[in-house]
Amino acid sequence: MAAPVVVVQGASRGLGLEFCKQLLKWKTPAVVIATCRHPDACQELQALAARGPGTGTGTLSLLQLDVDREDDVRGAAERVAALFGGVDLMINCSAMLHPSGRGETSLRNVSAQGVMATVSTNTVGPLLMAKYFSPLLMKGGGAFGAQPPERSQQHRGLLVNMTARVGSIGDNALGGWYSYRLSKAALNMVTKTLSVELGRSSNNKVVCVSLHPGTVATDLSAPYHRGVPADRLFSPQHSVSLLLALIQTLSMEHTGGAYSWDGAPIPW
Amino acid sequence: MAAPVVVVQGASRGLGLEFCKQLLKWKTPAVVIATCRHPDACQELQALAARGPGTGTGTLSLLQLDVDREDDVRGAAERVAALFGGVDLMINCSAMLHPSGRGETSLRNVSAQGVMATVSTNTVGPLLMAKYFSPLLMKGGGAFGAQPPERSQQHRGLLVNMTARVGSIGDNALGGWYSYRLSKAALNMVTKTLSVELGRSSNNKVVCVSLHPGTVATDLSAPYHRGVPADRLFSPQHSVSLLLALIQTLSMEHTGGAYSWDGAPIPW
Ligand SMILES: NC(=O)c1ccc[n+]([C@@H]2O[C@H](COP(=O)([O-])OP(=O)(O)OC[C@H]3O[C@@H](n4cnc5c(N)ncnc54)[C@H](OP(=O)(O)O)[C@@H]3O)[C@@H](O)[C@H]2O)c1
Ligand SMILES: NC(=O)c1ccc[n+]([C@@H]2O[C@H](COP(=O)([O-])OP(=O)(O)OC[C@H]3O[C@@H](n4cnc5c(N)ncnc54)[C@H](OP(=O)(O)O)[C@@H]3O)[C@@H](O)[C@H]2O)c1
Repeated sequence: MAAPVVVVQGASRGLGLEFCKQLLKWKTPAVVIATCRHPDACQELQALAARGPGTGTGTLSLLQLDVDREDDVRGAAERVAALFGGVDLMINCSAMLHPSGRGETSLRNVSAQGVMATVSTNTVGPLLMAKYFSPLLMKGGGAFGAQPPERSQQHRGLLVNMTARVGSIGDNALGGWYSYRLSKAALNMVTKTLSVELGRSSNNKVVCVSLHPGTVATDLSAPYHRGVPADRLFSPQHSVSLLLALIQTLSMEHTGGAYSWDGAPIPW
Repeated sequence: MAAPVVVVQGASRGLGLEFCKQLLKWKTPAVVIATCRHPDACQELQALAARGPGTGTGTLSLLQLDVDREDDVRGAAERVAALFGGVDLMINCSAMLHPSGRGETSLRNVSAQGVMATVSTNTVGPLLMAKYFSPLLMKGGGAFGAQPPERSQQHRGLLVNMTARVGSIGDNALGGWYSYRLSKAALNMVTKTLSVELGRSSNNKVVCVSLHPGTVATDLSAPYHRGVPADRLFSPQHSVSLLLALIQTLSMEHTGGAYSWDGAPIPW
């Protein structure tokens, strides 16, 4: 059996980088394809890629991919298709709160440019990834998630879009953060719409989910850490280990949904 | 008492034009500000504006406004502020299915440019309208909607974003139409987020809702009319008269929600 193939998009820092590290230690040695905007600047990923195949560990390939550029996405998919033929798991991690690094506290902070840049990275990026990588996910070996006994309900690939609880429309009691909130609500719609298109075929289904990692100590949330009680601020290690355990429970039953790190469904 | 002031954004055709016509016949003669991209090309609006104040009918002012251009939105709001000081009702009508005029039937039809153009008009446009016009809605006279007896629950303005049932994530069983669906899901998040920011103050609240007009015989839906049973394809006249009746029932109780033409809540 070939090694499971994983694409981690947005792997330079934060949760994406941590996904790569933990997937390299996966029980079945995996091929981890880490994509990021500036591979030359990512010393940690470079070091992981340089290690090469070791006993009992996976291998890491590093690809350049700015998710704001459709040509980059297409090019990366062509490379992965040529090298590996299929993908078992794809995780879209890249996102921003807002180009300024801070969510809008009120309408006064909203600008067309700010919203559009946020949507390009947080929503359109993952959709483009699905456009070019779904043919590969449909050729995956089904190595991730839970496979039910009925063949017709089994999946070939698993697609994870990293969402955020603040992207829940129904759960929004605080307001603010216009760009981030609307980009993640739109991303949840992308996940749902993908689940319909990629769930139709009887022999190459792809499970599509949105996952919320909790509040995690990364650059993205850094301006807000002071307001978060210590026991509710996860380390990237903790969040990713919970998310990988959750991913292993997912099947076509869950496709189209949004789930928190503890598996609880998130309302739209 | 001053005449009620209404802004209809996206008034050149379809539902926006029909809103203008019916609001000009409003029981209390109203000031209707119709905005569109190319006022020179809108002969029907020009004719309505030329009529001037008649006995028992409202008056129409025509303003240039391309909702893709933040400067246009700011400029129009400055004009309305100078001329009228406040706004009682604002209806954001402009939208597109996709720049091609047809929703994507599958991922193959998705392009970054197509999604971004759709989001700019359908989502960011209404958000920019709220940014620049909410100060005016907060100075409205509360002429539209239902006012409860408790003063602290009364509203000054009413903001309507035209959404679509296919923008409901929970209701999406068919897939496709990526750009339109995600832009309207994001618009519903805009409405909800606005409802928090514009519902806080005790004396200048604005009711914010998303409304679905039904399937209406306009240019937007034209490519799909053949598939719609005749009794489910509304005329613009019928849809707008239902929506205006519904608007008259809305209060702060409804703020943040999405509703169909018959008043039924639409799930996120
Ligand atoms: N941290 C939290 O508390 C939290 C909570 C809820 C949801 N999330 C979600 O979890 C995911 C990961 O977030 P994080 O906390 O790990 O954020 P992070 O540490 O700020 O990392 C963001 C990543 O996105 C990449 N990126 C940004 N724009 C990109 C582009 N155009 N093309 C390619 N990559 C791009 C960055 O790459 P560069 O190094 O090149 O900038 C970086 O690797 C995001 O989707 C986020 O919304 C996080
Ligand atoms: N018709 C339906 O079945 C249906 C169903 C559900 C929801 N809706 C919603 O109802 C609303 C009205 O739709 P409709 O059926 O009346 O559509 P329509 O007949 O196609 O009219 C669209 C309007 O949007 C304007 N517009 C487009 N881009 C603009 C921009 N950048 N700046 C300013 N105006 C712009 C158009 O102006 P130009 O003349 O300059 O192009 C036109 O006035 C939309 O939000 C639509 O999504 C309609």
